[in-house]
Amino acid sequence: MPASEISSFAASGPADTSVRFLTRVQQIVLEHAEQAERRDSKVSRWVDPERLQKILDLQFNDQPASMEQLMDCISDTLRYSVNIAHPYFLNQLYSTVDRVGLAGQWVTDTLNASVYTYEVAPVFTLMEEMVLAKMRQIVGWSSGDGIFSPGGSIANGYAINLARFHKFPQVKSKGLYGLPRLVMFTSEEAHYSIVKMAGLEGIGIDNVYQVRTDSTGRMDVGHLKQEIQRAKSEGGVPFMVSATAGTTVLGAFDPLEDIADICNEEKLWFHVDAAWGGGALMSTRRRHLLSGIDRADSVTWNPHKMLAAPQQCSTFLTKHPKILQECHSASASYLFQKDKFYDTSYDIGDKHLQCGRRVDVFKFWLMWKSKGTAGLEEHVDRLFDMAEYFTDKIRQRPGFRLVIEKPQCTNISFWYVPPSLRDLEGQPDFKEKLNKVAPLMKERMMREGTMMITYQPLKDHPNFFRLVLQNSSLTREDMDHIVQEIERLGRGL
Amino acid sequence: MPASEISSFAASGPADTSVRFLTRVQQIVLEHAEQAERRDSKVSRWVDPERLQKILDLQFNDQPASMEQLMDCISDTLRYSVNIAHPYFLNQLYSTVDRVGLAGQWVTDTLNASVYTYEVAPVFTLMEEMVLAKMRQIVGWSSGDGIFSPGGSIANGYAINLARFHKFPQVKSKGLYGLPRLVMFTSEEAHYSIVKMAGLEGIGIDNVYQVRTDSTGRMDVGHLKQEIQRAKSEGGVPFMVSATAGTTVLGAFDPLEDIADICNEEKLWFHVDAAWGGGALMSTRRRHLLSGIDRADSVTWNPHKMLAAPQQCSTFLTKHPKILQECHSASASYLFQKDKFYDTSYDIGDKHLQCGRRVDVFKFWLMWKSKGTAGLEEHVDRLFDMAEYFTDKIRQRPGFRLVIEKPQCTNISFWYVPPSLRDLEGQPDFKEKLNKVAPLMKERMMREGTMMITYQPLKDHPNFFRLVLQNSSLTREDMDHIVQEIERLGRGL
Repeated sequence: MPASEISSFAASGPADTSVRFLTRVQQIVLEHAEQAERRDSKVSRWVDPERLQKILDLQFNDQPASMEQLMDCISDTLRYSVNIAHPYFLNQLYSTVDRVGLAGQWVTDTLNASVYTYEVAPVFTLMEEMVLAKMRQIVGWSSGDGIFSPGGSIANGYAINLARFHKFPQVKSKGLYGLPRLVMFTSEEAHYSIVKMAGLEGIGIDNVYQVRTDSTGRMDVGHLKQEIQRAKSEGGVPFMVSATAGTTVLGAFDPLEDIADICNEEKLWFHVDAAWGGGALMSTRRRHLLSGIDRADSVTWNPHKMLAAPQQCSTFLTKHPKILQECHSASASYLFQKDKFYDTSYDIGDKHLQCGRRVDVFKFWLMWKSKGTAGLEEHVDRLFDMAEYFTDKIRQRPGFRLVIEKPQCTNISFWYVPPSLRDLEGQPDFKEKLNKVAPLMKERMMREGTMMITYQPLKDHPNFFRLVLQNSSLTREDMDHIVQEIERLGRGL
Repeated sequence: MPASEISSFAASGPADTSVRFLTRVQQIVLEHAEQAERRDSKVSRWVDPERLQKILDLQFNDQPASMEQLMDCISDTLRYSVNIAHPYFLNQLYSTVDRVGLAGQWVTDTLNASVYTYEVAPVFTLMEEMVLAKMRQIVGWSSGDGIFSPGGSIANGYAINLARFHKFPQVKSKGLYGLPRLVMFTSEEAHYSIVKMAGLEGIGIDNVYQVRTDSTGRMDVGHLKQEIQRAKSEGGVPFMVSATAGTTVLGAFDPLEDIADICNEEKLWFHVDAAWGGGALMSTRRRHLLSGIDRADSVTWNPHKMLAAPQQCSTFLTKHPKILQECHSASASYLFQKDKFYDTSYDIGDKHLQCGRRVDVFKFWLMWKSKGTAGLEEHVDRLFDMAEYFTDKIRQRPGFRLVIEKPQCTNISFWYVPPSLRDLEGQPDFKEKLNKVAPLMKERMMREGTMMITYQPLKDHPNFFRLVLQNSSLTREDMDHIVQEIERLGRGL
């Protein structure tokens, strides 16, 4: 039976074929979801790119594949993809596959909605506005606006655009011509999207002044002041500071109160990239890390990171109620007709840069419902507690060296010094040798498929591991296991 | 039983709870998918925003919802959302829920991958590169590069950024300061994202010169030449033309060969926004509409539009092999480490502006596999044939007036003149009266839930309907039904 009969648009295809196919796919993904979380399963099944290309039947044929061939395609895709759901996938700022979130995605996929007008997406329009209002309230604002964004990078780009528009509204129509050189500030450990988006928006990467960080990764406020003065003395016009709440590598929280003071004094837009660390706002015990965030003009906060919503769920929030609409609107008369029969203030699409836009709210809303606000807090608290347990454990353990003694977030950065190198510390080529350890250990863990933790250099630090937690089902036994596994992988180096 | 036990991160929750929940959700979405396509089901179930807000239990509680409450949330969401899958949802440039595509989304959701490095997304990295290469080949290029984009608007933004970088590579680092005023050109019927993105990128909306269109919606090439000269005489520096292949409202194809000639002569970047019309490239009979697209520097092409892949599946293609990397790269050392054990040219994330990025390729790849290339062609051919059938049918029908006599794409724009107005044509207030007809009929169709077709004004045309086809399961009987339904909805006006 050709697979073309499965499709809704093969009019001749019997409906039960489709149902049988969809049912089989549902079974296989459910089995996969169950398997993937098991600690005795593989995190990944490493195959070199050249070989994987040969294993997978990627090319298209002129004629339809059969249903069995499609099922094979799906099986191969599941087999050779990385198990993000595995407890020992600790590689990135996202992990786990939350089951309620997953169910939420299945629902929105089935609806295939695009969120721009109330008439085509009534439920999700109301849901977005409610969730964004709730998040703003948690940030500490009594009014404002917000949007769901295709990732934190684009959300940070929205911040730059709004900050510029706030100071120079004519940029929207006239562009940057005739304006002085605009300068913005962020720390040298801020996410790379800040410079990417400054490049896109015509600001230029060189006009993002990189403020020094201290040894824990936090923005050096004294240096920020100096850099603002330097920009002015060079004829630049400062317009925004982008602080970070939870840096990508070290998980550092910039001192938001101090930065807010400076922004206030210098009349600069104050943006906080809390894509990663925003989740800590849910915790009574941890939200002090973001103290001062209520003074920000805008915030990036990705529930798909610390709150473990499925990819992708990113938000951009601002305390200014109308600026998104004013800065972004194009009033397309084919989509945002004003003579509709309902209140068209519910047609929220024009405040976005995207036109068609997937539903990213529902999975998160459903998770929040399922756990309750207290459940999200408990989730965050567990992550931090577990990070402290892990940090305490490796602090005294032979061979482990913390990059910062007291990590602020659930990122734990450390070197593993194999036995053969332990006597060489202080010698001139020690750093160079240590720099090679993490890549070698990473290769071993990838080839064996037992775990995934990333590594990177930073400033003058040689390569170190960054373990990062968003999965609150991890236990102390898991942490103990991870330590032992690192030791095993480092054996003989 | 509290729903928190369902979640993977409620470590104490019994696994079978999760499985039972996921199984129930699978059942309900499968039933919904079956129902939604039935012609005797409702397209939508209209509820005013204020009332819907009361019906839906949107607010969060502190404590977890029960599994039954979650199931109710899901049922309500399905119930009050619009049935995009319904054959009579003809409102936008997307429609239908392709079942293979849907299955593909269920698979990628279950994997929850982010596509930026080979190590975390091996299958999807290879798949993206293969699909994009295939699409470039269909455009007519032997080399180049491409990326999946979160929608056509952002893809058009990529084009502007690359065009500018191509002419002035220093913009990436230095920004627009010190550069002359850059000017770009697009038609007055181009998608609004062109001006939105020009605003974002510091070009300014006023520096997008809007070229006149002819009565069929195609760019007036004579006027383009004049506008280029005008820009130069005003001290502006032209750098790109964004042509449209399939405009949003009328479905017009700009004369790409002529525009290519001008771009060649004037050394301008030639972009084609084929987000909508790109699908016609799959058809031997229809690809002539895009004749000259192989001479473009870049193309936006959204498979989620004419090819009916699920939302969201947008691509940006360029014939320049290295420019995406050169223009966008930030070389973040925490993610794109160069000392990895595999060939890091497979880490494709740095050529994107997004960092974390959902998998949009798989659903489309699986659909293409399932239909075969010939099946995609057949799909496109059916859409055009059905559009011609509908156009022919209403051409002679009392009360129907075509906005353009021979629509180029599967958009059919028409007025419905109710019997009471038919004798008034030519009178001074006829247009004003006609302008009110479509909104009233739209309200009726929404309240009854029998169909969804959008309407809009355009230039000096009063409101007219635009029916648009991407659903190749529609039959001639459906077309006949739609005509009768329009007549029924217009009764008594």
